[in-house]
Amino acid sequence: MPQVKFRVFASALSAAAMLLAMPARADGLVDDVTGVALDKDGRVIHFTGIVINDDGTVKKLLGRKDKRPERPDWREDMHGKVLIPGMIDAHGHVMELGFRELSLDLSDTSSLEEAQRKIAAFTAKNEGRPWILGGGWNQEKWGLGRFPTAADLDTIAPDKPVWLMRADGHAGWANSAAMKAAGVTAKTETPKGGRIERDANGKPTGIFVDAATALIEKVVPKPTPRDRDLAFVRAQEKLLSDGITATADMGTSLEDWMTFRRAGDTNRLRMRIMSYALGVDTAQIIAGPGPTPWLYDDKLKVVGIKLYADGALGSRGAWLKQPYADAPKQTGNQLLADDQLLNLMSRGAMDGFQLAVHAIGDRANQQVLDAIAELSDTYKGDRRWRIEHAQIVDPVDLPRFAKHGIVASMQPTHATSDMHMAEVRLGEARLKGAYAWKSMLDMGVPLAFGSDYPVEEPNPFVGWAVAFTRQDANGEPFGGWHPEEAITREQAWRAFTQGGAYAGFAEDKFGTLAPGEQADFLIVDRDPTLASPSELRETKVLQTWVGGLPVWKRK
Amino acid sequence: MPQVKFRVFASALSAAAMLLAMPARADGLVDDVTGVALDKDGRVIHFTGIVINDDGTVKKLLGRKDKRPERPDWREDMHGKVLIPGMIDAHGHVMELGFRELSLDLSDTSSLEEAQRKIAAFTAKNEGRPWILGGGWNQEKWGLGRFPTAADLDTIAPDKPVWLMRADGHAGWANSAAMKAAGVTAKTETPKGGRIERDANGKPTGIFVDAATALIEKVVPKPTPRDRDLAFVRAQEKLLSDGITATADMGTSLEDWMTFRRAGDTNRLRMRIMSYALGVDTAQIIAGPGPTPWLYDDKLKVVGIKLYADGALGSRGAWLKQPYADAPKQTGNQLLADDQLLNLMSRGAMDGFQLAVHAIGDRANQQVLDAIAELSDTYKGDRRWRIEHAQIVDPVDLPRFAKHGIVASMQPTHATSDMHMAEVRLGEARLKGAYAWKSMLDMGVPLAFGSDYPVEEPNPFVGWAVAFTRQDANGEPFGGWHPEEAITREQAWRAFTQGGAYAGFAEDKFGTLAPGEQADFLIVDRDPTLASPSELRETKVLQTWVGGLPVWKRK
Repeated sequence: MPQVKFRVFASALSAAAMLLAMPARADGLVDDVTGVALDKDGRVIHFTGIVINDDGTVKKLLGRKDKRPERPDWREDMHGKVLIPGMIDAHGHVMELGFRELSLDLSDTSSLEEAQRKIAAFTAKNEGRPWILGGGWNQEKWGLGRFPTAADLDTIAPDKPVWLMRADGHAGWANSAAMKAAGVTAKTETPKGGRIERDANGKPTGIFVDAATALIEKVVPKPTPRDRDLAFVRAQEKLLSDGITATADMGTSLEDWMTFRRAGDTNRLRMRIMSYALGVDTAQIIAGPGPTPWLYDDKLKVVGIKLYADGALGSRGAWLKQPYADAPKQTGNQLLADDQLLNLMSRGAMDGFQLAVHAIGDRANQQVLDAIAELSDTYKGDRRWRIEHAQIVDPVDLPRFAKHGIVASMQPTHATSDMHMAEVRLGEARLKGAYAWKSMLDMGVPLAFGSDYPVEEPNPFVGWAVAFTRQDANGEPFGGWHPEEAITREQAWRAFTQGGAYAGFAEDKFGTLAPGEQADFLIVDRDPTLASPSELRETKVLQTWVGGLPVWKRK
Repeated sequence: MPQVKFRVFASALSAAAMLLAMPARADGLVDDVTGVALDKDGRVIHFTGIVINDDGTVKKLLGRKDKRPERPDWREDMHGKVLIPGMIDAHGHVMELGFRELSLDLSDTSSLEEAQRKIAAFTAKNEGRPWILGGGWNQEKWGLGRFPTAADLDTIAPDKPVWLMRADGHAGWANSAAMKAAGVTAKTETPKGGRIERDANGKPTGIFVDAATALIEKVVPKPTPRDRDLAFVRAQEKLLSDGITATADMGTSLEDWMTFRRAGDTNRLRMRIMSYALGVDTAQIIAGPGPTPWLYDDKLKVVGIKLYADGALGSRGAWLKQPYADAPKQTGNQLLADDQLLNLMSRGAMDGFQLAVHAIGDRANQQVLDAIAELSDTYKGDRRWRIEHAQIVDPVDLPRFAKHGIVASMQPTHATSDMHMAEVRLGEARLKGAYAWKSMLDMGVPLAFGSDYPVEEPNPFVGWAVAFTRQDANGEPFGGWHPEEAITREQAWRAFTQGGAYAGFAEDKFGTLAPGEQADFLIVDRDPTLASPSELRETKVLQTWVGGLPVWKRK
């Protein structure tokens, strides 16, 4: 940097000082609210108004009897409506959500036949598209007893390539035209870290798991920058409408990052994104020699790096210590050798990036815990290593989370979505230490909750209700699934707000409505601390505010 | 974007309005200057003070008798020193300049032996470096009568790879260790668009031209993000110290762009960069569906796309209509087939990017002119097609520049650096239409001048002097080289200021000191409108101001 030896004129600074000298000039007031929040210790507090600084941060929460500013710059009367802090999703995939919003969504189908009808209708409506893309299917939910096949698609879409991702994102379903376009035949070798479902003759049936999805992905036409911009807008609108004011983006690609920046550069970025770059090389390209600063008034930052230790449970990609209960020859997919994982984590940590490693199976969790144990000797200080999902953990490994200050980044709705499948895959004995929110909390592990959208719906009120009931939308099972791992309503709320901020090194920026933090809040149609679990799930967001500005409103 | 139906609070706006209501509050004053500039019509104007708005733009130029603001927010007295608008380089390579500043520079060597001594000293001083990298050599300047060879390097650096680029960036010189690291042998095929110098047995001698440089480049260790940040800082300091307040970056790579953004994100970007992405794919990645907005208070923008039609004259890479006078079997390198060039330009133009195509030889210029002629039917409006260098143009092709509103982006110092070599390569007859600044201007072609740094020194006062003298630093040749193509001092100044801004669609942002434009100016040690050519070359920049702030000062 050039050495500017003479004075830098402080005209902007002195203008700001003059503004501050004028009492109450730049304060705004959101008044007459039924305000409910958690303080920094996790206790419920109530308030009836918020004074907001000109820079969008909270100046003060007001009680009923507190004096209001005499001449606020602006004032918004909420007529007694409920106001709560913005929700934070600690693990989501922003651009995937956007593309999901733009593509065929099979997540609401409950049978193969229903899915086929929906695919046929979408194909007819999108004649101009070279490929039919979508996802959200789950053969478990369909009660199919097998994976679907290319033949199931060929009857309705014989000519055009079709490629549909499973709900968990770890497997894809192709028709024959897609396999032909990709040059996949019986001779195609199975890539390392993946699996191709084959018939008795070795012919691929149309299902590609984990690393094998790349065989098809590589021939899918890439979205244009314009497609990406549209997908981002859709994702942001969906998240804001669900009350999410900040999210971690878990696995930001170069193209994703450029899309976020375009939104920021053109004032279309209205929520906060804590970005975790997809791998070390991507982090070095998009962030450089270390994490970025907060950009666009605390709306965007590369915080860390996302790595994958294994796949998912539904597609038997989760890496287990013992074989799957329903597939005695499979233990899942190890995606990185021990020294590879260690090397990648070390390269990231050396540059000051936070590390967030996907680990679902107990063996994968053990591998990551081993790596963290080894790295902790070298990389000291407040590192906040994150394990994403931490879904199936051997009880002997549980105490290691607290020992190394590891953040458990977990998704409550995965428990109720997975429960029947998890019992089949793991057997009853291994469920101790699975989705173990209370055990984590009791041991002092920082919990950060999210949804893993678009794998699950981003709606945080659903996850919140699941967290203290362990019951699904139908109230099943009675009494909750492994209710010993339920946490309290307030603990769950905290994990969906402060927990997510802490997990992203942002606890001084947002997460509560403490003075000095960003004024990120929601106007909702009920008090979530008083609602029954089923009422809580149905919470409607009426307005979403980020940085003291309204950024979304229900029509 | 979410439809925000209710009002967006205009607190920031009303604060701004209040500031404007306070007379003269935010104005700064640079006073007691000997101000010289050109107006928008290219006429010399004089002034003695500048009133600067709080946002860094010019409010008003003041004459000796004009009333000064009564209570300026700040005031800087220049004690009568000369003030001129900031210079603009319409064609440079920012990051290459930075790396050049950090690497071995042979541009001041006048013999092979001198270069060898410098290489040996640099190698001894940089034992820790895995490779010795640098450039700037020119065998013509050495009077060597041949290219240097690997053997010339092996005697001084037998073990460590050495890779040194020619001054024009179109050829590289490797030692045997570098060729070994790259796996280059007599069996290595010559890549398309390149040339490998070989001995009688077909063994590479160590010189790799144009596309063939990639054979070595691909094994050179890549710079880290931290290396890049340092290189940028050095480049910026060099440019600001030479009086360049804005530059086109001709061929911005993804990594270059990320480096510029890191500088902007951390308030280290102190000059203005008009970026031309290196190819269409890079443009789509770094800018998206079209040019970026101006970022960081008009300091950075992707304006367009850089393409290459041919190589350079010195290495006989320039694509000529007739064979080289000194190599009757060579006509240079065509880098893109006609349909490729047309396709790339069309893809860029479709997305609203400006196209800037490198063309040095007369055949390459013809190819680009043909392409522009064809594209002009489709892409109408103010496109400002740019031809970079436009160095050797067949006189029959000259009128086509004006016809299509093409900007001729030329570098005066190339003429005096090349003159002897150009005569040898081209023969006297072909020099009509070469470096033809006056012919271009006379036909109404917009001229934008630059230096092509680091190929030449960025110092714009040298280029300015060359432009109206056609003489080198020694005043050679007497009367100027092809003096019929010299332009006036004022015309040259304009091409180094307004011309560069116009070429980058930035004429409303900077380039003159007209009210509303950015206050980008220099304090220099002499009046460039009065100095003799040799004095003008020696102009010293004392202070450089960008956006109304001092960003560099001579120590």
